[in-house]
Amino acid sequence: MTPHTDAQPTAARPAATALPGRPCSIAAALQVLGEKWALLAVRELFYGNHRFDRIARNTGAPRDRLTARLRALEEAGVVERHAYSERPPRHEYHLTEAGRDLAPLTQALLAWGDRWVSPEPPVVLHHHPDHPDGSEDPDDADDHGHPLDAAWTCRTCGVEVRSPDLSLEVRSPGWDHRGPAAPGNDTGALR
Amino acid sequence: MTPHTDAQPTAARPAATALPGRPCSIAAALQVLGEKWALLAVRELFYGNHRFDRIARNTGAPRDRLTARLRALEEAGVVERHAYSERPPRHEYHLTEAGRDLAPLTQALLAWGDRWVSPEPPVVLHHHPDHPDGSEDPDDADDHGHPLDAAWTCRTCGVEVRSPDLSLEVRSPGWDHRGPAAPGNDTGALR
Repeated sequence: MTPHTDAQPTAARPAATALPGRPCSIAAALQVLGEKWALLAVRELFYGNHRFDRIARNTGAPRDRLTARLRALEEAGVVERHAYSERPPRHEYHLTEAGRDLAPLTQALLAWGDRWVSPEPPVVLHHHPDHPDGSEDPDDADDHGHPLDAAWTCRTCGVEVRSPDLSLEVRSPGWDHRGPAAPGNDTGALR
Repeated sequence: MTPHTDAQPTAARPAATALPGRPCSIAAALQVLGEKWALLAVRELFYGNHRFDRIARNTGAPRDRLTARLRALEEAGVVERHAYSERPPRHEYHLTEAGRDLAPLTQALLAWGDRWVSPEPPVVLHHHPDHPDGSEDPDDADDHGHPLDAAWTCRTCGVEVRSPDLSLEVRSPGWDHRGPAAPGNDTGALR
């Protein structure tokens, strides 16, 4: 699975074109990520839990459904299996580059769940921005960083993103923001 | 549905405590948001499409499943119904504050799908940060803004969030980042 910048189709892409409804990368992403067990398995991989039994225990996913979701994530290029034993054959699951790129999505889910669903945050992320890139475990550092309070921010202008500041350009032929439509009505404001 | 800052339980919260696996706001959020039809319905509400028929057409969701998901989102306080006709009774769906707060999540899904799944972005979001707050349609402005390129940025230090800079403090009694555990091992680095 290679990023879109090279514009190469990948194994995950053909299916996306067969989706019902509006052509949409949200729909395409959800088609790959499936229901909650897939994203909770990704959460466990971010937390450093790479073996099936531990992922099953920590997510609470039924084993047959977890097996199916991990297989789909592997086929889509989000996770890959690394053998750690040949006899008996045993493997661990690891995030690919596409999988690691799900960090902003899982952080958005975490922040929303903390704010709107969980009575108290079950986990808190701490931010250590001075931590040298990958050189050591952030927990081993003397500094404890600060609790992460993240905002979705535009890299181009540095301004925090607010929905009223966004407009939508629909590039799919035959669609506009209202739905299937004649060409020409191709933009819309987000409400 | 009120934000967590007031620490009041809401209708959506009791179910979250009954989830299997690790206590987690990602799991709690996904329990409310369910499978893809719920998030695609939220997408259509962001795009300004508030009526059932249009949401069904534009998502491609089976009508019975869309009905069930919209009812669950209403019970969870993410959407609300506004009557627009009394005879026959007709209503539109609108996002609540909790629903509008899903904007970063849908934008993170969009960005990931654009990068890793869609061959070409079906829609492009444009950012107009100088647009006066809600005063007019961004599309009516002369400026066309710039394409949105968003990332999570820490409000405390202003630095873009990268996974190697994060550590995890697990606050749920009896759990650490590896899973159910003795007290004391309560932090972990994200990999």
